[in-house]
Amino acid sequence: MKIIVDCLGGDNSPAAEVEGAVLALKNNKDLRIVLVGDEEKIREILTRRRVRTPRIEIVHAPEEVTGNDKPIDAVRLKKNSSMIRAIRMLREDESVDAMVSNGATGVLVAAATLRIGRIEGVRRPAFCPMVPNMAGGPVGVCDSGANVDVTPEMLQQFAIMGTHYMETFRGIKNPKVGLLNIGKEEEKGDDLRREAYKLLEKTPGINFCGNMEAREFLNGEFDLVVADGFSGNVLCKCAEGTALEVLKRLKRDINSKKKYQLGGLLMKKMFQEEKEFMNYLNYGGCALLGMEKVIVKGHGSSDRIATKVSIEQACMLLKGGMNEKIRDSIALCDQES
Amino acid sequence: MKIIVDCLGGDNSPAAEVEGAVLALKNNKDLRIVLVGDEEKIREILTRRRVRTPRIEIVHAPEEVTGNDKPIDAVRLKKNSSMIRAIRMLREDESVDAMVSNGATGVLVAAATLRIGRIEGVRRPAFCPMVPNMAGGPVGVCDSGANVDVTPEMLQQFAIMGTHYMETFRGIKNPKVGLLNIGKEEEKGDDLRREAYKLLEKTPGINFCGNMEAREFLNGEFDLVVADGFSGNVLCKCAEGTALEVLKRLKRDINSKKKYQLGGLLMKKMFQEEKEFMNYLNYGGCALLGMEKVIVKGHGSSDRIATKVSIEQACMLLKGGMNEKIRDSIALCDQES
Repeated sequence: MKIIVDCLGGDNSPAAEVEGAVLALKNNKDLRIVLVGDEEKIREILTRRRVRTPRIEIVHAPEEVTGNDKPIDAVRLKKNSSMIRAIRMLREDESVDAMVSNGATGVLVAAATLRIGRIEGVRRPAFCPMVPNMAGGPVGVCDSGANVDVTPEMLQQFAIMGTHYMETFRGIKNPKVGLLNIGKEEEKGDDLRREAYKLLEKTPGINFCGNMEAREFLNGEFDLVVADGFSGNVLCKCAEGTALEVLKRLKRDINSKKKYQLGGLLMKKMFQEEKEFMNYLNYGGCALLGMEKVIVKGHGSSDRIATKVSIEQACMLLKGGMNEKIRDSIALCDQES
Repeated sequence: MKIIVDCLGGDNSPAAEVEGAVLALKNNKDLRIVLVGDEEKIREILTRRRVRTPRIEIVHAPEEVTGNDKPIDAVRLKKNSSMIRAIRMLREDESVDAMVSNGATGVLVAAATLRIGRIEGVRRPAFCPMVPNMAGGPVGVCDSGANVDVTPEMLQQFAIMGTHYMETFRGIKNPKVGLLNIGKEEEKGDDLRREAYKLLEKTPGINFCGNMEAREFLNGEFDLVVADGFSGNVLCKCAEGTALEVLKRLKRDINSKKKYQLGGLLMKKMFQEEKEFMNYLNYGGCALLGMEKVIVKGHGSSDRIATKVSIEQACMLLKGGMNEKIRDSIALCDQES
């Protein structure tokens, strides 16, 4: 396996990516990594860590793509940026199987869409982040921002792709799929949801469990939520923000009284574990599903551990043959409809 | 002031509505209430509570509208249901100023839309629930489910109506308005959001503060969120569900170890206060803004206190002249564009 790692664009670049790659190489003996970025800085980190291995290759592309770049312009004009260069290698170099980047999401989606082919039959790629649900497991959301305008058929494909993703990455057999909607009953929502509901009911190979209201998101009833990119994005970010704000508020409460401080002291480990449990960085990056090559977008704030997790996530998706499974299921679905 | 209270359709009907009305009458000497529902049951509760006042009127309409009714069908066919009867009185009886119902949301919106006129110039009515933000204040979301398909002009009107609502109901001067979007920058999101952003920037009388990402919803930075009904609904329900699930999870943690149990004991009051703070029932019902008469939809699970709050909320909106202010601002906005 050969994976490209974009070493620019994250909050902790390039240290997070270079050190994350080194950690991933230690765990995965059949892995090779191409680090794309500022060669001098990358070498400096490797030297400091005394890493010398033929399994690391470096490609010099020191320009950075940022969240302020207009996606299409960046793809066309920033050809020497690490991200666009990495995408080009992903397309042109057949020995390269996957790519990991902590850089600008919008540019990555645009570059992948314009330069990397989609899996045969796939209408649109979709982002599928993983969120900790409060019952202790993960729940995926597909799509969460790659597409704002979608059709019922796209939502159906998001369900198929997300199902294979949850099975391959998290080992969840027959994941329970919910359609994000504003009510439980079949006829709730707009035409898009009503038509998608009908399609999802008869889609082979997925375990469709009906509409999901946003208040059920984290209760453990669903393993995968199917949504348009706008409301899927709202769902993920709202859950993340609310959990964080509630914990922050409790912390403030605890500090307000001696008695609570004492209680907080007794529960210190518990709160630390909860904070860790709710830390999105521990749940891997966000896979861009539906592309011919595996692409994982890490959080911008990823550190070396989070980057290692994202790289290993790409390994798992490759080893598990996720893309081949998606291709077969999409073909089967098209045949039956 | 004369307010109609629908005494069927809630989880605790008719006790919650009848007893809530009695409590509201005690606090508001200039208030009169019409209770619509099963007359015998209503009289039974009043007798049991020893309430005898000329300020209560009863209208017998014992049929119930439920969440399973198709909205349009219910409006046409269930004419003797308490909700549809109440809506008819609201339209026909000029002495009636407002209505409160804990019944089925979809039917209420359909009935109001079909039977009650909109404030001049208003394109669509919108729901605006109030959610506790973690900084200690409320934040409103307009719309949160009355409209799934919206235009930029509708979002602009939601901002205007929501602004007057937050000012009248919660006394927040010049509330900070955010547009729910998937990124902070002006150009983020779909065409709807980009055009709405431009309109909101130049809308007189509102304090537009730019795009709001869902993760900022509860941090206290915004007083009012403008959204299409679908994503607004997702936002509210996700925040509600997440806060609840986090507290539930902590409770489970606390019960898992003796040491944590002891800590929990010390913090018992704190957790109780937080649970109360996050209890949506304390934040009043959800106003349906933009109609010629004031309509407040209480939570289905409302008890007598929550129903009292909803009735008093209707009083405040009447006394504060919210609808007149909305009419003037919409006219001003139409003039300037």
